[in-house]
Amino acid sequence: MPIANTPPAPYYAVIFTSLRTEGDNGYGKMAEALEQLTATQPGFLGIESARDGLGITVSYWESLDSIAAWRANARHLVAQQKGRDVWYEQFQVRICRVERDYGFERT
Amino acid sequence: MPIANTPPAPYYAVIFTSLRTEGDNGYGKMAEALEQLTATQPGFLGIESARDGLGITVSYWESLDSIAAWRANARHLVAQQKGRDVWYEQFQVRICRVERDYGFERT
Repeated sequence: MPIANTPPAPYYAVIFTSLRTEGDNGYGKMAEALEQLTATQPGFLGIESARDGLGITVSYWESLDSIAAWRANARHLVAQQKGRDVWYEQFQVRICRVERDYGFERT
Repeated sequence: MPIANTPPAPYYAVIFTSLRTEGDNGYGKMAEALEQLTATQPGFLGIESARDGLGITVSYWESLDSIAAWRANARHLVAQQKGRDVWYEQFQVRICRVERDYGFERT
């Protein structure tokens, strides 16, 4: 997975940090489908994800409205419920305004 | 690594996303020392980190001033230079204000 190619700040980020329960329980398939669906949402700017024990997924958005719309998406609501019922031991969601950013790329 | 136990919002987050170069090149030892040093900084609230190919480290802070002070820390400056010289193929740093958060913990 590449580093997300986001536009100049300000924009918004959702930091989703999670600890999974044991077993897959359909998580892998749903996570993949959901990531593809996320990318089609209005205001979506990019996504970055990594897991080794702790999972961290950061999605980037144009506005708080676009984040709220994605949170209320019907298929996403089903996944959110499944997350509480089955997939996650614990999670934290943090809604952020990206104030500034900078980067480095080896040439 | 547990999910960071942060105080009520607002607070600040630094999202550091990176792609490593090949080989360790002293990275593991420095990363561990640096993470321990981070935790002693004024205004530090917590840290979360995961890597599978893409690396994501999110550190949480009381204020933009505490982030600026850590960025200017002498040992951190040495690590930043080594990052550009040796360890990273690419990275992005995003400075964020956490506007709100919510979580779930299985009982």
